[in-house]
This record gives sequence, C-alpha cells and structure tokens, in this order.
Amino acid sequence: MAGIKRLPGYLQLLRELQADGHEFVSGTVLAETHDLEPAIVRKDLAVTGIIGTPRRGFCVNDLIVAIEHFLGWNSPAKAVLVGVGNLGAALLGYRGFDDYGLRIAGAFDRDPARIGLSIHGRKIQPVEKLTTFVRATGIILGVLTVPAGAAQEATDLMVQAGIRGIWNFTPTKVKVPEHVVTQKEDLAEGLAVLSHRLQHLMRPASPV
Amino acid sequence: MAGIKRLPGYLQLLRELQADGHEFVSGTVLAETHDLEPAIVRKDLAVTGIIGTPRRGFCVNDLIVAIEHFLGWNSPAKAVLVGVGNLGAALLGYRGFDDYGLRIAGAFDRDPARIGLSIHGRKIQPVEKLTTFVRATGIILGVLTVPAGAAQEATDLMVQAGIRGIWNFTPTKVKVPEHVVTQKEDLAEGLAVLSHRLQHLMRPASPV
Repeated sequence: MAGIKRLPGYLQLLRELQADGHEFVSGTVLAETHDLEPAIVRKDLAVTGIIGTPRRGFCVNDLIVAIEHFLGWNSPAKAVLVGVGNLGAALLGYRGFDDYGLRIAGAFDRDPARIGLSIHGRKIQPVEKLTTFVRATGIILGVLTVPAGAAQEATDLMVQAGIRGIWNFTPTKVKVPEHVVTQKEDLAEGLAVLSHRLQHLMRPASPV
Repeated sequence: MAGIKRLPGYLQLLRELQADGHEFVSGTVLAETHDLEPAIVRKDLAVTGIIGTPRRGFCVNDLIVAIEHFLGWNSPAKAVLVGVGNLGAALLGYRGFDDYGLRIAGAFDRDPARIGLSIHGRKIQPVEKLTTFVRATGIILGVLTVPAGAAQEATDLMVQAGIRGIWNFTPTKVKVPEHVVTQKEDLAEGLAVLSHRLQHLMRPASPV
C-alpha cells in the first residue's frame, strides 16, 4: 500500500510539470523530488501500466492519465459526509478534494441545530434522509466525521444505506461487513512520529 | 516508523482497559484488537522498554506510562497553530489532542478579518507576533494550516521564530533547515488507498 500512498504525490508533481509545459520527466527527477530510490519510483508507477523509455523517461500526460485512471480519480467520485462538526465543516470547505476527483455531494447530521444550515454551499440534511439520498444518487463513498461515540451507529446507518467505502476520520475503529472497506485517518499516528522525531532531535544520543 | 505509528492505537486500548479496571493485558489481546501478529506487537512495544511476563502479559498502567513517556506525551506539549481557516479552526476545536498530550497555546493568522476573533477559546493573534510568542513561551512545536501557496512563507516564519517541529497539514512539501523536523498530513494518501480498495471491491478481477 505504501506505493499507492505515494501516487498522489507523483500526481501533484506531474501536474505542476504539465502546467509548466514539460512533456517528459525522468524517473530520476521523480525519485529525487520524493527522496526515493529510482527503482522504488519505477515499481510504484508500474501498477499504472506505464513504463518509461530509457532516454526520455515518462510521458507526463500519459502518466497523469494512467495514475488518475488507476485511482479512479479521472471522473469525480461523489461522496456523502456524515457529521458536520468542526472537522466535517472543514472537509466540506477543503478545496483540495477537487484535485483528487472527490466531490462531497451531500452532508448529513443529526443535530437539529445544524440541519438546514448551509456550509460551504451545501445544506445540512437530517441523517434520516441518508438512505433515500444514497439510493437516489448511487453514491458508494462516505466520509465519517461524527464524534467518536457515534461512529459505529453512523457507520451502520451508512452501510444500511448502501455505502461501500467509508473514510473514517473518527478515532473509533468501526466494524463493517465484508463487502465494505474502511480507511481510517488517524491524526495521532502523524503526531506520534513527529513527537518521537522531535524528542530525538532535542535530546541527541548521549556521548559514550 | 510503522511501529511508532501504532503506539497511539495501543495507548487508546490500554486507557480503555485501565478505565474498566483491568490490571494486565496479554500480548495476544493487543494483537487481536489491532489485527496484528503477537510478535509484531511485542516488537512495537519493546521500544518503550516494557516487556510482558509470560503468564500475566503487560501491566496496563506501566505500559501506558512507558508509551506516553516514549512519545513525550506524559506532559502536555504546547504548540502554536498558524493559519486559522477551516482546518485550523477544526483543529483548534479538536478535543482528541488532549489525549495525545498536545495543547495549542496560540493561534496565528495574517488575515485582519480573523485577527482578534476567538475560536474555541483562543484569540487569533497577528502572525507578526509569532516570534515574540514562541520565544516567550519556549514552544518548539508548530501546526501549519495555512493555504498551500502560503505554506513555505509561514514555515520560514515559524523556523525563524524558533519552532523545531512542524506538523504540516498543507499539500505543500515545505523546506526546512536540518535542525527542524516536519511531519506531513496528507489526506490524499488515505483517499488513494481507499479509492484503490473500493475500485478493487466493485470491479473484481475478470475470470480467466
């Protein structure tokens, strides 16, 4: 999965190169920009079916199309968002999703104080309408941003409604049936790595 | 780093066990809860210096203290947050940080329309005051939530002010001197993995 995680990074650089009028990019440039070995980059990109030529490297346009196709980002995927608290509202306003072909088509909450409010152009709907909306639109992707304690209940609702992929921003490990996939975003993980590296930096190994 | 990323997950479970009055937990339980091999869990936990006993497993309290100590989460680390847009505001309101020993002590922005506003109990200060604040408080950790285009400039400001660890929530790869560490939170990575798994789920391999 590490290689798949790196694809958005390559994509970002390729789009910049494309915008600057570059037709080809060498594997070495891609590798250096991402602090990786060229062999790793070639392996990462092989999943898209694109192989560079020895002299010219990779065709920028072809590689963009291939990565987008591989990730299913060539046509915008629609998603519902459940839980419009701070984080949910932030994600509704996050413009970066456009770059990844993600569009949040509906936002849902169970708090009567929030229902009907318009956040970043999307009206918050009552969670009771989730099933009707998901079935009518055929959406299969859901963004979960409810409080930790409500995560499993909201997940069950999403699964019942027909959601097949859940992007879980709560700290709760939710249970889903086999035909549903989840991806957990855990801020604690990144902070753990940063804390550890910062401690190491501030407290160098004592001299022998 | 994979093992360090898993420590917050163990910590969460251990705190739940502690709250339920459990004194010991077996490596097997920790492994099963996290879908890991027991050997991996033992290896992950070895960095904290805690070794389980064959019969009783790990002492819950000792292991909590050791993980918190290893990550530097035993005493709350203070951080500044630069860029109080949607995401910055969401992070200011994110209660989960308490669990990781992180407290955002100051929030900064350069937008005059935001300066002076109070978000989740913290008054937004002009970014010109960052250096004075960082030097007065001795804070070394910074959360970067400015728009992508302002990321490098804000990073330079933070580094000049004395910040040594930057938690970067922007899509920009920022450049820092050697004595500074950065950790990038990239939503695109998680979405890439989810998109790929979802495509694989919906479009099973064609029969031979």
